[in-house]
Amino acid sequence: MNGADRLCDTLLTNAVDVCFANPGTSEMHFVAALDRKPQMRCVLGLFEGVVTGAADGYARMADKPAATLLHCGPGMANALANMHNARRARTPMINVVGDHATYHLKHDAPLTSDIESLARPMSQFVRRIASAEDVGPAIEEAYVAALTAPGVATVILPADCAWNSVEPAALKPVRVPTLKGVDSATLRAAAAGLRKHGRRAAIMLTGLALRQKPMETAARICAATGARIFSQTSNGRTERGAGRVAMPRVFYPVDKALDQLKDVDYLVLVGAQAPVGFFAYPGKPGRMTHDGCEIVTLAGPGDDLPAAIGALAEEIGATKTAPAFIAPPRQEKPALPTGPLDGDKVCAIVAALLPENCIVCEESGSSARGFYQDCHSAPQHDHIQLTGGAIGEGIPLAIGAAVACPGRKVIGMQADGSGMYTVQGLWTQAREKLDIVTVVLANRTYQILHGEMRNVGVNDFGRNATLMLNIDEPVLDWVMMARGMGVEAARATTAEEFVSLFKAALARKGPFLIEAAI
Amino acid sequence: MNGADRLCDTLLTNAVDVCFANPGTSEMHFVAALDRKPQMRCVLGLFEGVVTGAADGYARMADKPAATLLHCGPGMANALANMHNARRARTPMINVVGDHATYHLKHDAPLTSDIESLARPMSQFVRRIASAEDVGPAIEEAYVAALTAPGVATVILPADCAWNSVEPAALKPVRVPTLKGVDSATLRAAAAGLRKHGRRAAIMLTGLALRQKPMETAARICAATGARIFSQTSNGRTERGAGRVAMPRVFYPVDKALDQLKDVDYLVLVGAQAPVGFFAYPGKPGRMTHDGCEIVTLAGPGDDLPAAIGALAEEIGATKTAPAFIAPPRQEKPALPTGPLDGDKVCAIVAALLPENCIVCEESGSSARGFYQDCHSAPQHDHIQLTGGAIGEGIPLAIGAAVACPGRKVIGMQADGSGMYTVQGLWTQAREKLDIVTVVLANRTYQILHGEMRNVGVNDFGRNATLMLNIDEPVLDWVMMARGMGVEAARATTAEEFVSLFKAALARKGPFLIEAAI
Repeated sequence: MNGADRLCDTLLTNAVDVCFANPGTSEMHFVAALDRKPQMRCVLGLFEGVVTGAADGYARMADKPAATLLHCGPGMANALANMHNARRARTPMINVVGDHATYHLKHDAPLTSDIESLARPMSQFVRRIASAEDVGPAIEEAYVAALTAPGVATVILPADCAWNSVEPAALKPVRVPTLKGVDSATLRAAAAGLRKHGRRAAIMLTGLALRQKPMETAARICAATGARIFSQTSNGRTERGAGRVAMPRVFYPVDKALDQLKDVDYLVLVGAQAPVGFFAYPGKPGRMTHDGCEIVTLAGPGDDLPAAIGALAEEIGATKTAPAFIAPPRQEKPALPTGPLDGDKVCAIVAALLPENCIVCEESGSSARGFYQDCHSAPQHDHIQLTGGAIGEGIPLAIGAAVACPGRKVIGMQADGSGMYTVQGLWTQAREKLDIVTVVLANRTYQILHGEMRNVGVNDFGRNATLMLNIDEPVLDWVMMARGMGVEAARATTAEEFVSLFKAALARKGPFLIEAAI
Repeated sequence: MNGADRLCDTLLTNAVDVCFANPGTSEMHFVAALDRKPQMRCVLGLFEGVVTGAADGYARMADKPAATLLHCGPGMANALANMHNARRARTPMINVVGDHATYHLKHDAPLTSDIESLARPMSQFVRRIASAEDVGPAIEEAYVAALTAPGVATVILPADCAWNSVEPAALKPVRVPTLKGVDSATLRAAAAGLRKHGRRAAIMLTGLALRQKPMETAARICAATGARIFSQTSNGRTERGAGRVAMPRVFYPVDKALDQLKDVDYLVLVGAQAPVGFFAYPGKPGRMTHDGCEIVTLAGPGDDLPAAIGALAEEIGATKTAPAFIAPPRQEKPALPTGPLDGDKVCAIVAALLPENCIVCEESGSSARGFYQDCHSAPQHDHIQLTGGAIGEGIPLAIGAAVACPGRKVIGMQADGSGMYTVQGLWTQAREKLDIVTVVLANRTYQILHGEMRNVGVNDFGRNATLMLNIDEPVLDWVMMARGMGVEAARATTAEEFVSLFKAALARKGPFLIEAAI
């Protein structure tokens, strides 16, 4: 057997059995080894951004990493934006980046580049494999790093390390170290702070803390102390819907976030980063909390977040307190809007018709700001979203979620501008016959940037600004593009049409795209 | 005025008057400044790989750099693959990458990343702007670096450096240092070597040495000494056609390249890299020349290549020698093939009908290996191609060439697998009404990788390999995809249909795509 076989075996031994791939010449031995492992599910992306975005979506829903197969530095470069999003979501991921044979690097062949320099900014772990015998240990280290850092682990596989021989060995799953808990001093301090500040305190969560049970426990603490609760503006995955915590996110617009947090004097972070502006604006602060707010980290991203919340509830004596903020079920069926379509109506309709146990994948930009709120009391579902601000993750994220959860409907709320970044992903949705309804909110503009231009003080746009902020000439025909990639599609221009198409899409299996012309 | 105004003024003062752009929030002041400069042509790409690929094509044909506008680390990450190709082509390019305001970086907001680490592998020059006053000097340095390194210069523009005020100033074009010539010892040695080795010597060219006059001068040297002539396997731009040197490229397949160069004992490099395999293969050498071959660098990529060749011709006394290898004009019109279409027939037809003074943009993968040969005696034209092996440059490269040369027809020979990487570029072709005929050689497979798998010893493909190497299920409908982005398109399945469509496309203006189903 060769190094590539060892690589596959090591992944499979650790239950990593999905590989999103876009191979090139230097990975041919890896491809040949995958071909000998039918138990590995290989999913091709026609562009590397699809590959890592899908791996991100997969791991968020499967709670275990996928592997990716990427081709040299430039291939990985194409994958970096969605590695960035995965890094921000703290998603476990194992990237295998092929490189030239060790002895070929000195020739500086055309595809040669400094892979480490490219990988490091978007990876929590980077490791170059030194030999065929080093393949197993490197993949095991990457696996542990992906689960404990947690986040993106990138392994560079020189071609000769893949094709050289290794001795067969009996492989065992690697032991993943237990995540760190919270020390008692921190617990006591946080409990005291929450009690002291009461309604002027808040708990802010992300990561695994946004699953039903830890959220509920946090909401018990809130009920006991008066504290408020928030999640980050962007989170990897949140369990949502009636009977679960109606979790408010910190607002994206700076003025709204400042207002939202202005009464918070004490903030407990559980996996979350302290809330800051996505961008700086002249004359506005960077931190969204006021200067006097005390910020305490109960648990960092690499800690056991559910355990930390549980321990804090014990410390406070709130384990049996009825949780606050639980979203009630809808009292009656929401009325469906009618007439010409707009973003709000699309959101209202999707929220009203949301099926039980679906996965909502949100990269809807400025057209669907109210959608998250609309879904508080919807049937229970998972919500995954763009996390790092690197647009072009929606279509791939839906792929990954659908691969991870074959029995569940995935609903992609997709802005048109962002969707174009990784539009090739539609082909993979068709190839894999994934059960995804993509709703493209087609406003034909980078609408968010119109707002940002006004924030900058520009209200009258000339030719150059118009050219750079509008995408309406020519109009993108999403129905044709989707069909061109094998995905059935249709367009809605009225609410009635959208209702009818969306119901039909929910009733069938397989990928379908609705262009909502808003 | 602010730093962004100074940036635009500095570019325009140095005749950089095209900006390929994909902006985000941190570049809003730059966009506003561009809006105040109607003399700057702003061209939007719906994905950053389109932006840098277009800037590459533009500079290859305009012989001056374009600017690009990219959004933070992840936006630039999307642009890196085509920056890599531009770096390998030694194309001058000035990337302006927006970043957070200097004081906002400490907050590690979601889009924050280590831009320098990402930029360096694909840039000859990287510089972070320190203040609004530093904008002018930074852009001037980048401009000089782009022209003298030569290659990709990347400047990081923090948002506050764009929006803070600067004093108005009278700007003057920056002086670009003269490129280095060849010292006389090197000249004498190269001349002696060529004379000594005669038919067992060769000159290998790239970059500006592949323009008509320096190629011709090199061919005079060859006539005088018996030396052979080659260009690199991949070159930024070659002036081609009847009456010019029929320049052979070093073959891509290792066995063919080894055979091609087996008799070369003395190799003079003019801007070129010593020929090496694109990839390593078990048991095959990395260098394409034999171990005893003496390799001499007459001039490196940053030197004045045409002057170096001229000086060598003088040293050898060949300035008036009739040049060798000049391609004769066609004696008769080539016959047009008929019947079911294949890659060879598409190449033969395009070569036969190639219009005078067009620009051929080649990213045709494995389906058009004979095309370059087919064009030796075609009417004079420019040939630009994928240079760094990072596929997904063809469609953007054609955009840049068309923007640079509005009066000339651009013909894109495009493989389907590669084309999907930056398929969004078709929209920019439509938006800008660019005179581009894109010929998609649709073989529905990563054909090159089938060959590479066989090189690896795999002949029977199982399910996983088939899934990763074929893109035929579902079939990509290029006609629908193109129309979806506003580009008129049609499909040819026979040679007759292709001839008819290609003639019609040549006879009209504006973008047109032909899917050649081969």
